[in-house]
Amino acid sequence: MADYPKTTVNTVKRLGKRGAYDYETVHTIINTASVLHVSFNDPEHPFPVILPMLGCTANFEFQDADANSSPQDIYIHGYVSSRLFKSPEKSDGEEGLPITIAATHMDGLVLALAPFHNSCNYRSAIAYGHAALVTSDDERLFAMQRITDNLLPTRWANSRNPPTKVELNQTSILRVKVVSASAKVREGGPSDDRPDLKNEALRKGTWTGVVPVWQQWGEPSPGKDNGCEEVEGYIEEWRLRENQKGKAIAYEAIEKGK
Amino acid sequence: MADYPKTTVNTVKRLGKRGAYDYETVHTIINTASVLHVSFNDPEHPFPVILPMLGCTANFEFQDADANSSPQDIYIHGYVSSRLFKSPEKSDGEEGLPITIAATHMDGLVLALAPFHNSCNYRSAIAYGHAALVTSDDERLFAMQRITDNLLPTRWANSRNPPTKVELNQTSILRVKVVSASAKVREGGPSDDRPDLKNEALRKGTWTGVVPVWQQWGEPSPGKDNGCEEVEGYIEEWRLRENQKGKAIAYEAIEKGK
Repeated sequence: MADYPKTTVNTVKRLGKRGAYDYETVHTIINTASVLHVSFNDPEHPFPVILPMLGCTANFEFQDADANSSPQDIYIHGYVSSRLFKSPEKSDGEEGLPITIAATHMDGLVLALAPFHNSCNYRSAIAYGHAALVTSDDERLFAMQRITDNLLPTRWANSRNPPTKVELNQTSILRVKVVSASAKVREGGPSDDRPDLKNEALRKGTWTGVVPVWQQWGEPSPGKDNGCEEVEGYIEEWRLRENQKGKAIAYEAIEKGK
Repeated sequence: MADYPKTTVNTVKRLGKRGAYDYETVHTIINTASVLHVSFNDPEHPFPVILPMLGCTANFEFQDADANSSPQDIYIHGYVSSRLFKSPEKSDGEEGLPITIAATHMDGLVLALAPFHNSCNYRSAIAYGHAALVTSDDERLFAMQRITDNLLPTRWANSRNPPTKVELNQTSILRVKVVSASAKVREGGPSDDRPDLKNEALRKGTWTGVVPVWQQWGEPSPGKDNGCEEVEGYIEEWRLRENQKGKAIAYEAIEKGK
């Protein structure tokens, strides 16, 4: 089984054919997002909290399990008041804090003859689960390494490690046990109504199609204390590869949906 | 007054000096984000809902009010089950559905000698408010136009308008009355600990600094029904301007925080 079961919580209701539930689609969208939006409730406030945080999927018990085909937890790096984890009634029994994680990639602006048919090409994933603060040093170290290398592959090995005891203690990591998840993907070009398509003056005067978009990583800028003469090869290779990949995905999305 | 009041809901607690509360900062981050993450609670489910949606700030009563200096509502385009708006106890009295909106721009990956000090340059805004479905045709039309032009300036006037009665009825728009909001901005380069900086071998062998990132809009790709020979000038100008602006912001963020 390499799919999240469809339940009332995760089933994509609007435009259901855009929905996907397989591990590969969901985990890839999460692991390639530059930021995750994490939402939970603080009983002291009327509004849900949303925090932009860094994180990725991983499985501490089966560390070599392939994220594309195996169950994963989501590790998130960043501060969430520990008060929210302490009280059982606040944390949904003993399971942890109910939490929702969203990852969204924008792939293009879809322009139609009529604004009503404008759209965006995008890939988004939503995961629902229960979060707990990671307290074991081993698991915290594991998560720090995974999150670091998810941002920039091999950075962990290529920078100072292991972290000091103080650093380890000051790092707050949440482990989210995923209960359900789904993805939604929009591809292709615009789709206009027949009366507009028959309007030759409108068609000739209004460009329709897709303006693709991706994240572009620029020339690295050294910090004031940098002592390394050249940007290391693995950083440049990663950056250029990401730019190519982002661009390719944005253009492929246009063709795929056509 | 061009600031959101600091309250227990919106005050930036972690690294408070990164917080901002002025209309200009908050509204600009929202209006330049390619996607908004919208969170609310559905009493039938244990997890908060997060939806990626399109939207922008505007003020229907004072339509010419400058978003940089005046109070704004947030108009969001997209489907939210109307069930959530119907029951007064579900919607926090008569005020509407409590909703949180997040907009995040990633501006750079900050690489330090130690993974513990890695960071990201970013600009994020969070707005808390009460959402209601817009029911008046005039206001819906106003919001559709604002959201369209916020995606691509002047697209409304340059495509088929006004919408048909059917289109207008099928468009669902939420108006969010903002109760409070704040922004958080991280700029600058890495900041390492003294013992690491004194380690000459580490400093020489580990590149530190910022890899800037921005959204890059590529060459537009015409749709299958496009009848307009060339991509219109306002689209190309917008696209190239956005690319320049995004790149400039990412590089300026590095210098500003130094």
